[in-house]
Amino acid sequence: MQTVQTIDELKHILEANKNKTIGLVPTMGYLHEGHQALLNRARKENDFVVATIFVNPAQFGPNEDLDRYPRDIERDLKIATEAGVDLIFNPTPEEMYPFESGITIQVGELSTKLCGESRPGHFDGVLKVITKLFNLVQPTKAYFGQKDAQQLAIIETFVHAYNFPVQIVRVQTVREGDGLAKSSRNVFLSEVERAEAIHLHKALTLATEHWKQTNNVDEAIAIGKAHIEENTAGKIDYFEVVTYPLLQQVSEQASQLLFATAVFFEKARLIDNILVDVKEV
Amino acid sequence: MQTVQTIDELKHILEANKNKTIGLVPTMGYLHEGHQALLNRARKENDFVVATIFVNPAQFGPNEDLDRYPRDIERDLKIATEAGVDLIFNPTPEEMYPFESGITIQVGELSTKLCGESRPGHFDGVLKVITKLFNLVQPTKAYFGQKDAQQLAIIETFVHAYNFPVQIVRVQTVREGDGLAKSSRNVFLSEVERAEAIHLHKALTLATEHWKQTNNVDEAIAIGKAHIEENTAGKIDYFEVVTYPLLQQVSEQASQLLFATAVFFEKARLIDNILVDVKEV
Repeated sequence: MQTVQTIDELKHILEANKNKTIGLVPTMGYLHEGHQALLNRARKENDFVVATIFVNPAQFGPNEDLDRYPRDIERDLKIATEAGVDLIFNPTPEEMYPFESGITIQVGELSTKLCGESRPGHFDGVLKVITKLFNLVQPTKAYFGQKDAQQLAIIETFVHAYNFPVQIVRVQTVREGDGLAKSSRNVFLSEVERAEAIHLHKALTLATEHWKQTNNVDEAIAIGKAHIEENTAGKIDYFEVVTYPLLQQVSEQASQLLFATAVFFEKARLIDNILVDVKEV
Repeated sequence: MQTVQTIDELKHILEANKNKTIGLVPTMGYLHEGHQALLNRARKENDFVVATIFVNPAQFGPNEDLDRYPRDIERDLKIATEAGVDLIFNPTPEEMYPFESGITIQVGELSTKLCGESRPGHFDGVLKVITKLFNLVQPTKAYFGQKDAQQLAIIETFVHAYNFPVQIVRVQTVREGDGLAKSSRNVFLSEVERAEAIHLHKALTLATEHWKQTNNVDEAIAIGKAHIEENTAGKIDYFEVVTYPLLQQVSEQASQLLFATAVFFEKARLIDNILVDVKEV
């Protein structure tokens, strides 16, 4: 596995591999089994696998946790090596953003829902770095976890609307044995919070089951919210059911529904979701 | 020469030519000698030349001339054939914009100068279509005329900031024998206006000459404006001197200065500019 920090080195290595299929796994590092699932899938489906490790300042808001975002580059490199990654691109912020052009990508409507409300500018920053990574790596396929369902929906819509020549691959959320979705932010949970955190997934499961039986969205949401309130000390940011990928109000036409929640704990805001295929119900 | 209207056909032909260098010449059609210069340059420098003819609704403002923008597709195809173009992509607006994602590219600061003031949203629309064309065609080089200097500056800055894998080639403005810059909009000039229109270039020339002799920007602008006012019935939109490509106030550090003007005639707004290399003066 090669590791490079500069765009010039990245281009040089990609040039030497240019007739291969390339799988891209963009990450902010601190890799866990969720990322491993992305890397394994990319390894299986491509000749050459590029993983990026870049804690992207553009997607953190002014009051967010950029400085204390967990980092462990040595462990990341070990995990990437074991997954058979060919190339790690691990640039500095100065390498990625050497100057401010003033030209921005704005997500608009899709970023006003779910996580967007409490993270203004976050998804604009995601598309900023993703555009650069797509242009630099020119991957055949790029891999994203379904855990960040809104991010996935926005990236899929962006790629479709602007014709980026890449196939987006959705990879299912990886969970702990008790159901908690893997996340780099789980390390910030206290022992008590860690025990409570399983109730995000439980609440989502209860809500989807109720919806499947009754088709009643409002009741499903109420049941999910009540379960979290009764079983955790966390503060619910949102608990919603929307269409996927346009994140709109549930309608008869929707083919997929996203049940999604975000909960603030003392030092971490956790998210989780379940995507339901309406036709299969 | 092949002509296609759909993205699927475009992709199919490009796939069959994928190991060639590709030159892209994006146009809105109604080709004139200015475009021919772009096509000839692209033909000389690439294995495969793609020209697009698409009157892009996204770059016309609500009060602008989309409906009466001149079109002559048969003549365009003849000119493109003569220039040795391999492929014309001539999509409908519905083919290019099948749905509204809500995700926009916003030029910001760079679009507030020069033409941006009287054409709000224009350059956002240019980057929207250019992003799609770059992603669809994946050209080695893309060719733009220096006549639209602000557009060129914005595209160069965008490509640089977002790492689009394409080389932007600047092609010098082509002029009529009397100095008038070639433009699709020249057909809207009355006979009297056509005679007056040569004074845009004359005024820019007088201004750059005065600046080279005196280094006095304000005087140069005053001389240029006075020349247009005295010799045309047109209304000056702007006559400015800014740095290139950031379009900022003239400073000691600038290596290139853009002398640029826009003038409203009865049925056409004409632009012209001269780019001066400061080091050579």
